[in-house]
Amino acid sequence: MRVEDLEATLRGMAEAARARLPALAKGNRDAALLAMAQLLQARWQEVLEANREDLKEAEAAGLPKAKLDRLALREKDLKALTEGLRQIAALPDPLGRIEGLSKRPNGLRVGRMRVPLGLIGFVYEARPGATVEAVSVALKAGNAMLLRGGKEAFRSNQALVSLWHRALREAGLPVEAVSLVPTTDREAILALCRLELLDLLIPRGGEELIRLVQREARVPVLAHAKGVNHLYVDERADLSMALRLALNGKTQRPAVCNALEAVLVHEGVAEAFLPLLERAMRERGVELRACPKALALLKEAVPASEEEWDREYLDLILRVKVVSGLEEALAHIARFGSRHTEAVCTEDPRVAWRFLEEVDASLVLWNASTRFNDGFQLGLGAEIGISTSKLHAYGPMGPLELTTSKWVALGEGQERA
Amino acid sequence: MRVEDLEATLRGMAEAARARLPALAKGNRDAALLAMAQLLQARWQEVLEANREDLKEAEAAGLPKAKLDRLALREKDLKALTEGLRQIAALPDPLGRIEGLSKRPNGLRVGRMRVPLGLIGFVYEARPGATVEAVSVALKAGNAMLLRGGKEAFRSNQALVSLWHRALREAGLPVEAVSLVPTTDREAILALCRLELLDLLIPRGGEELIRLVQREARVPVLAHAKGVNHLYVDERADLSMALRLALNGKTQRPAVCNALEAVLVHEGVAEAFLPLLERAMRERGVELRACPKALALLKEAVPASEEEWDREYLDLILRVKVVSGLEEALAHIARFGSRHTEAVCTEDPRVAWRFLEEVDASLVLWNASTRFNDGFQLGLGAEIGISTSKLHAYGPMGPLELTTSKWVALGEGQERA
Repeated sequence: MRVEDLEATLRGMAEAARARLPALAKGNRDAALLAMAQLLQARWQEVLEANREDLKEAEAAGLPKAKLDRLALREKDLKALTEGLRQIAALPDPLGRIEGLSKRPNGLRVGRMRVPLGLIGFVYEARPGATVEAVSVALKAGNAMLLRGGKEAFRSNQALVSLWHRALREAGLPVEAVSLVPTTDREAILALCRLELLDLLIPRGGEELIRLVQREARVPVLAHAKGVNHLYVDERADLSMALRLALNGKTQRPAVCNALEAVLVHEGVAEAFLPLLERAMRERGVELRACPKALALLKEAVPASEEEWDREYLDLILRVKVVSGLEEALAHIARFGSRHTEAVCTEDPRVAWRFLEEVDASLVLWNASTRFNDGFQLGLGAEIGISTSKLHAYGPMGPLELTTSKWVALGEGQERA
Repeated sequence: MRVEDLEATLRGMAEAARARLPALAKGNRDAALLAMAQLLQARWQEVLEANREDLKEAEAAGLPKAKLDRLALREKDLKALTEGLRQIAALPDPLGRIEGLSKRPNGLRVGRMRVPLGLIGFVYEARPGATVEAVSVALKAGNAMLLRGGKEAFRSNQALVSLWHRALREAGLPVEAVSLVPTTDREAILALCRLELLDLLIPRGGEELIRLVQREARVPVLAHAKGVNHLYVDERADLSMALRLALNGKTQRPAVCNALEAVLVHEGVAEAFLPLLERAMRERGVELRACPKALALLKEAVPASEEEWDREYLDLILRVKVVSGLEEALAHIARFGSRHTEAVCTEDPRVAWRFLEEVDASLVLWNASTRFNDGFQLGLGAEIGISTSKLHAYGPMGPLELTTSKWVALGEGQERA
């Protein structure tokens, strides 16, 4: 497709969606989510069929196994997707409330009304489940979505978007609320970045994709970026708890953004803790990369290179560093952390509160695993991603994070003096 | 200054400021605001002296009168600035609260802690009062500020920033919290746009400046953009109220962003209302520019050109359009409005609520003047600008709008299953 045609197509989709935003906000969006759950159940074979074609082509093109895994839809995904839709439908409606309506000295009543953000562009990679999950969170909050999924998942996404259209129609809502960008080349991402009719652009995927969108976007971006997450084991930590938290953070699901990448150990407990850590990690096949002080206390660790302290492995590799105390831990995290998830293990509430207050990250935990940085775990019911930018939303983005509030004023003829 | 030197200088300032953010958040920021109020009183003559030099140079360079007016500090500004500082100091501290702390099924307590945004870049034009007002709002919320003011105000800004440093020192706070970019050429704006150590960039000024920053910024931007504000006079409006609201919106202070730029009149009341409107506006020297239908009912109006329906005059000019009803008014505002301030005048609550709910603007008013879109008027106590972007803050940005909330989790060893 020529660039001008692509841009005109996107503009047409965006204008059609924007024109239907009031109808979407006023309509029964939960009915559309429930209809989608039923349609997925009734027509899952069609979706799988489209997915198989995508997989066949991706295999022929030599896509690596990890990517094929993410592309593949399986029988068990149906259950997760339909349950997710029903959970989101059951959440309270984030829209329409007027918060803090109060009377000014001149009698004017002012407050803030929760409204949808509007039209959201979503750029993601070849994981077709996102076509259900992300759209459901956006629709719950009354937003329209323009989707550009990974090219390998194009047929799967087409099948899912056509079910969304049917679900919207069944609920009496405008089908223009969900559109799939009709081409999947890189130019489609750039065209979305330039589409000023978007209220927000959410990129979700690898670091390269996110950087591209952040660099090119002419509209606000909420980025789901990498998680370089630390656990600080304090001098007054319960060492058996620290060990469990390190294991849970690193090994429960190593390839996700809230997995643990580094442990900082207070020098006062390093001698006691590091051999325990090494033994437990070795049993689970985790390689340790360590600072010189930690190396002296470990048997099989390798030295961590200078360049890797800010790396996100997403793999069975863990960095270990001995620090002189809280100050050094805070400074290390400020320098190498990615504002995603940071945890402290200590029995000392003064250490814990300084850590909770001073560490700049979307979730800061005391005596708990980094793996809890997740919309479901924190009680949002769902998420479209985890924001590591501090503007608008910091942390998991659920339906409420996809709204804004405008001011409303109810008067009786008030003028400004 | 060479570009590389400028970039290194800004990076140095930004790193120094970031390192002191925890000290700033924990310190007595209100004491710094009160110290600044006292210092302004004690040393106002020094500030005026610097301002006179700026003015002399600006006059010699042929700066237009409106700009000289904005550059000039006067005796009465001292009172406004010191009162503003004391009001902001008296507001409750927006930081430190943990909102909605609640226990998850696994016993983990999770909530959101209000924290500063961090380091804010502020790019503004030659209005030195902003060097006091904007910094005070930012400091109240624990943020550090990197300032790039208009080049004509450089000496005034230097004098004011040196008072800020003294005030910070008196309050035991780090002086690195407020810095003035040492050069004022356009390159300084571009360098700030590229400075990834900023958490937020706020441009305030003309449309060109704001577009430049939005286009070039590599960090989030909250733009204070133009106000193309409408008043819709419904069929069931109290016409004498509508007249007062139109006059107040247009003439009480025409050069500000919340002034009224256009009136949309229901065709059912156009014949009764437009002659009243014309007479009253003529008395105040306001020129009317009208659509063909309105022209037929007005004596001295000129036709509005096709291109000017989205124009912000900031002057004694008012557009007038006759519409067939609420639908056409909503469609017109959606197309030509700038998401700033929109008002409806009606006695019909159904019309009012549809207008309040469906119009997408940072403030939507029913039976009140557009001039109320202002931080003080809405009860924020102060503002650093009015955001017309929907992300993070929509409307006046007070201290709370310059914070974010991070998640905190207080556990007892919880792991993810």
